[in-house]
Amino acid sequence: MQGIDFVKGHGTENDFVVLPDPDGKLDLTPARVRALCDRNRGLGADGVLRVVRAGLVEDVPSDVDPDGWFMDYRNADGSVAEMCGNGVRVFAAYLREAGLAEAEFVVGTRSGPRPVVAHEDGHVTVHMGPVRIFGESTATVGGREFAGVAVDVGNPHLACLIEDDPSELDLTALDLTVPPGHDSVFFPHGVNVEFARKLAPDAIQMRVHERGVGETRSCGTGTVAAVAAMLHLAGKRTGESTVDIPGGRVRVGITEDGSTLTGPAVLVARGRLDPVWWSAY
Amino acid sequence: MQGIDFVKGHGTENDFVVLPDPDGKLDLTPARVRALCDRNRGLGADGVLRVVRAGLVEDVPSDVDPDGWFMDYRNADGSVAEMCGNGVRVFAAYLREAGLAEAEFVVGTRSGPRPVVAHEDGHVTVHMGPVRIFGESTATVGGREFAGVAVDVGNPHLACLIEDDPSELDLTALDLTVPPGHDSVFFPHGVNVEFARKLAPDAIQMRVHERGVGETRSCGTGTVAAVAAMLHLAGKRTGESTVDIPGGRVRVGITEDGSTLTGPAVLVARGRLDPVWWSAY
Repeated sequence: MQGIDFVKGHGTENDFVVLPDPDGKLDLTPARVRALCDRNRGLGADGVLRVVRAGLVEDVPSDVDPDGWFMDYRNADGSVAEMCGNGVRVFAAYLREAGLAEAEFVVGTRSGPRPVVAHEDGHVTVHMGPVRIFGESTATVGGREFAGVAVDVGNPHLACLIEDDPSELDLTALDLTVPPGHDSVFFPHGVNVEFARKLAPDAIQMRVHERGVGETRSCGTGTVAAVAAMLHLAGKRTGESTVDIPGGRVRVGITEDGSTLTGPAVLVARGRLDPVWWSAY
Repeated sequence: MQGIDFVKGHGTENDFVVLPDPDGKLDLTPARVRALCDRNRGLGADGVLRVVRAGLVEDVPSDVDPDGWFMDYRNADGSVAEMCGNGVRVFAAYLREAGLAEAEFVVGTRSGPRPVVAHEDGHVTVHMGPVRIFGESTATVGGREFAGVAVDVGNPHLACLIEDDPSELDLTALDLTVPPGHDSVFFPHGVNVEFARKLAPDAIQMRVHERGVGETRSCGTGTVAAVAAMLHLAGKRTGESTVDIPGGRVRVGITEDGSTLTGPAVLVARGRLDPVWWSAY
């Protein structure tokens, strides 16, 4: 049977179409990415992860091994993207299952090399790089202000820790259908906003509004930002915490020089795209 | 490779997961239907179409041939459904492509046998059964009333023909994010509401709000209802018209004793569901 091979998978309900393309021969146009991600006309996904040898891709960061696997990540709108913590887990799970990688390996991304560990239980740990606290600001939802910590995880976040008395505020009642207000001088290019509630010293519950997208089931860098903010407010520089998000549970670790994100990666289906359908885009 | 075979396809952007199950051995629970249709955790679809011999299904209408193919249609919420004009086209396209049916055959459904014709160009004609005009009523959108014709196509519709002067009302500007108001005494179980504008004597443009669902890209019975209403208001009992809906274009014919719906059916991909994923639900 002809057609283009694909795998569909998700990480905490952030879902992707994986396209194996070891020899870099796939003509993955923005129109095809949009059609693939279209949830009615195509397969439907938040993004596409092309699996290709790094040396076959232009403009790869110089510290990425050209012989290693590169995650060519595209947003659902067809644009090129840099990194996605949930996407890397699905990418790694695909490589492991296809027998293309060992349990510990490095994924090349447009943000640089990302070491990963694929665990026996199907979870994957991704090294997410350094985290930097760069100030304090406030978010506004429904006329109410929330104090937040500004965190850089490669992209900007405003992580708001809400008092852990449920009678004070029900996290699930926050209206995130409109973007939270933020200081547009402090965040000139917009910001991802997290609202987190501490459940225990090493456990938080969180919701996230991604800039330009809306509320999502999960945001990898957002979970890292929320844990970094929680530690910062407790006067700590390092630590670990679970993070419960609408799409599931992940575990974040913050060290002196980096961060890790551990969570599930689920492969849902494998198959081939219809060649007539593919050629129509 | 193990796993459950599937095909993903759509008819005017109403999309389905087709599950071939000729011997009726698939344990298709409501939880599995919900997981399959979940657009993040599963494959994502508006519904599931199980392909099974009619004789292997309980409670099939007595006029359905037990040796013929039966469309076991399930809604995304896991419930059993009767008929879907867009689904039958995708179902027929799958059977044709798999070599399991000739160009003209009959699909068994919970609403009875539906004769279909699979054309060379990939379009499929489905006999949709009788149409009955049963009154007049009004729909309300944004405080404005629209006169409509009540039409029974196996399910209830209120088809509102809007004056064809675009300066009078821009069809695309109608706010269908909330259900249109309707006479709840006349339609005690709710109603599907169509807003249609005549483009030519045999061409209309339409939007539809499906009861319990919201605005959709396409509604097969809704397009039949709109054409029946247009003919009724023109004093005609029979006729044909194209219908442009957000998901594409179909053609509807109304005869003395029935109706036909002709439109595209697109097969997007074929593959296998991961057995670990399947067994988790």
